[in-house]
Amino acid sequence: MSLVRHVEYADAGPEVRAVYDEIMALRNVAAVNNFWKVLAHDPALLRRTWEEVRDVMAPGALDPLTKEMIYVAVSATNNCEYCTHSHTASARKQGMSDAMLAEVLAVTALANKTNRLANGYRVDVDDAFKPRFD
Amino acid sequence: MSLVRHVEYADAGPEVRAVYDEIMALRNVAAVNNFWKVLAHDPALLRRTWEEVRDVMAPGALDPLTKEMIYVAVSATNNCEYCTHSHTASARKQGMSDAMLAEVLAVTALANKTNRLANGYRVDVDDAFKPRFD
Amino acid sequence: MSLVRHVEYADAGPEVRAVYDEIMALRNVAAVNNFWKVLAHDPALLRRTWEEVRDVMAPGALDPLTKEMIYVAVSATNNCEYCTHSHTASARKQGMSDAMLAEVLAVTALANKTNRLANGYRVDVDDAFKPRFD
Amino acid sequence: MSLVRHVEYADAGPEVRAVYDEIMALRNVAAVNNFWKVLAHDPALLRRTWEEVRDVMAPGALDPLTKEMIYVAVSATNNCEYCTHSHTASARKQGMSDAMLAEVLAVTALANKTNRLANGYRVDVDDAFKPRFD
Amino acid sequence: MSLVRHVEYADAGPEVRAVYDEIMALRNVAAVNNFWKVLAHDPALLRRTWEEVRDVMAPGALDPLTKEMIYVAVSATNNCEYCTHSHTASARKQGMSDAMLAEVLAVTALANKTNRLANGYRVDVDDAFKPRFD
Amino acid sequence: MSLVRHVEYADAGPEVRAVYDEIMALRNVAAVNNFWKVLAHDPALLRRTWEEVRDVMAPGALDPLTKEMIYVAVSATNNCEYCTHSHTASARKQGMSDAMLAEVLAVTALANKTNRLANGYRVDVDDAFKPRFD
Repeated sequence: MSLVRHVEYADAGPEVRAVYDEIMALRNVAAVNNFWKVLAHDPALLRRTWEEVRDVMAPGALDPLTKEMIYVAVSATNNCEYCTHSHTASARKQGMSDAMLAEVLAVTALANKTNRLANGYRVDVDDAFKPRFD
Repeated sequence: MSLVRHVEYADAGPEVRAVYDEIMALRNVAAVNNFWKVLAHDPALLRRTWEEVRDVMAPGALDPLTKEMIYVAVSATNNCEYCTHSHTASARKQGMSDAMLAEVLAVTALANKTNRLANGYRVDVDDAFKPRFD
Repeated sequence: MSLVRHVEYADAGPEVRAVYDEIMALRNVAAVNNFWKVLAHDPALLRRTWEEVRDVMAPGALDPLTKEMIYVAVSATNNCEYCTHSHTASARKQGMSDAMLAEVLAVTALANKTNRLANGYRVDVDDAFKPRFD
Repeated sequence: MSLVRHVEYADAGPEVRAVYDEIMALRNVAAVNNFWKVLAHDPALLRRTWEEVRDVMAPGALDPLTKEMIYVAVSATNNCEYCTHSHTASARKQGMSDAMLAEVLAVTALANKTNRLANGYRVDVDDAFKPRFD
Repeated sequence: MSLVRHVEYADAGPEVRAVYDEIMALRNVAAVNNFWKVLAHDPALLRRTWEEVRDVMAPGALDPLTKEMIYVAVSATNNCEYCTHSHTASARKQGMSDAMLAEVLAVTALANKTNRLANGYRVDVDDAFKPRFD
Repeated sequence: MSLVRHVEYADAGPEVRAVYDEIMALRNVAAVNNFWKVLAHDPALLRRTWEEVRDVMAPGALDPLTKEMIYVAVSATNNCEYCTHSHTASARKQGMSDAMLAEVLAVTALANKTNRLANGYRVDVDDAFKPRFD
């Protein structure tokens, strides 16, 4: 059970309703998911987080599907149950197949493994990998 | 300085040289990077890790660039200095621009943020996000 | 379900009972919470951990409420469900309001975000931030 | 060395300069620190992150010193060298003494310890700690 | 509920069955555990992961019980519920007593604590600890 | 450079000297390492941490070498540079060979990998792994 009560649309003030309306309109859904109902206790946090999600996850130099798969990889690394579920669902909507999910998690698992080999052995960074600005 | 001495090609036994040869051939480089020179102290670990990197990072349901960007996202999350440098370099070779790197890290940062909001508030997973197999 | 059976007061030996008595007396509660009932399998670990919690969380250069909020921030970062629940409850007892909890988690989320931007870009530490002892 | 070149004021475009001007004015400093010079490669990321730092770290239900100390605790937990240095410096400006820093880190260390005891033993959350909304 | 359907033996193809057969034979069990039933969606991932577990956890310079206890320590650090349960069970089969488990977790907790003290204070590595190859 | 000045023996007060004396006597060394010189700013933290290290790392149900290897595994997982160096050095003094170090890190890397596969797929814990107390 969430640590704070969910703020339902019927009980929300105008600032919160305005964000809920934007989320529902952009995503074409009939209600917002629990994450937003919890953040709604702090309307400024709700608006700021929503605008960041909306802008960062929009098409840019990367397409939305690639962004959602990166989100899944980070959420699996950090063990966020909620985000793993919600962003796997979003990535599937964007076209992620079972085979793609398997590869996202295989890369995530491999990176978590070699991160510890490199850190555990304190491997020196090769000069060739260091950025050069000249 | 790495925790163990780097195993240079000239000093390596046949099992290690065989892996070094494969890496240099596949990547078309004149020498392997330090990570492999450290793992070479355990030839079985060297071979197993190399084969996993080779197979997991190969084109599949996802293209190699997408995989390298996921690797960068995980390495930034875990704070692996070596892997951040080496996989940013690999991703750039695969075509990652500065704008794409900025978006990879913007998504990574956002996911690390919302992971903690969801975990800190212990937000209930919406039924709609839960997998259903019927 | 906890990995080991809870040690209830009625079944505890004198070393464990002595710690339970101290906890109940200091906190003015009728029973210890599950965390202690699990540690009680190793009476030395139980005593050492209790004394550390008692001493570190006591008023000092920082007040107990500030300390509890730092505890919540770390527990949300590490995704410890038990500690998030128990230390949110403790912080509320010390006077943390919903608005304060929202700010604790907003700062926690922001720090988790910028930690990854700084690590992902491997930003050089400014000389002005480095300690100087002269 | 940072992964991308620092964007100095003299080389910055108008969007970046506007953010730099705000930072320098609010903090009463003659130049921005390296973190911002790196984010400046993505002017939208720069502005969004700056506005979040400005708003989240402002006085609210919590005072700025408490917020900076929470930032230090999270940065130590995640091992962000840059953020540990920069936010320890900020907290000292807000009045954090050596004794207060020692307590911030003692609480951070204790929380990291008990988080693993609770997670390692998978301790059941006590009913008394669970939120109730009735 | 797992994110993907479990692949049961009766529904598995020949590649998956071959791995299941090896696991059941080596471990002398009548069925594989859920972890493998999930990886089976990607037969290459299943085989690669199984062979790594089989080879890395086999007796070598370290005995299998020591390896399982290291596995438990890492899983508690990362908060992997599944792996904590499965590798605690494996370690018990190899002879881990309650007293040994208590010491594994006490060391894990202490290391998590001092890791943050060392990182938070950015303690300089003593020259005496640095490797020397001459 | 450490965030606070190192407290050298010559400059230390009697509480700090007493702990330094115990460390030097028990370890048969001529000076304490930097970690203790930093904690010495908070004599209570210094004493508490030293006594915990002394007691937890002493021979018990597990031998000191096994404990040091677990410490290395956790420190590599958390990327603590200081602790990786200092506890690798301690483990070597206790008899850890290069081959044993390689296996410690191979298990650590594998656990970090499968932790993310299990968390990313949210694998259900098998009933057989759950503790039963009846």
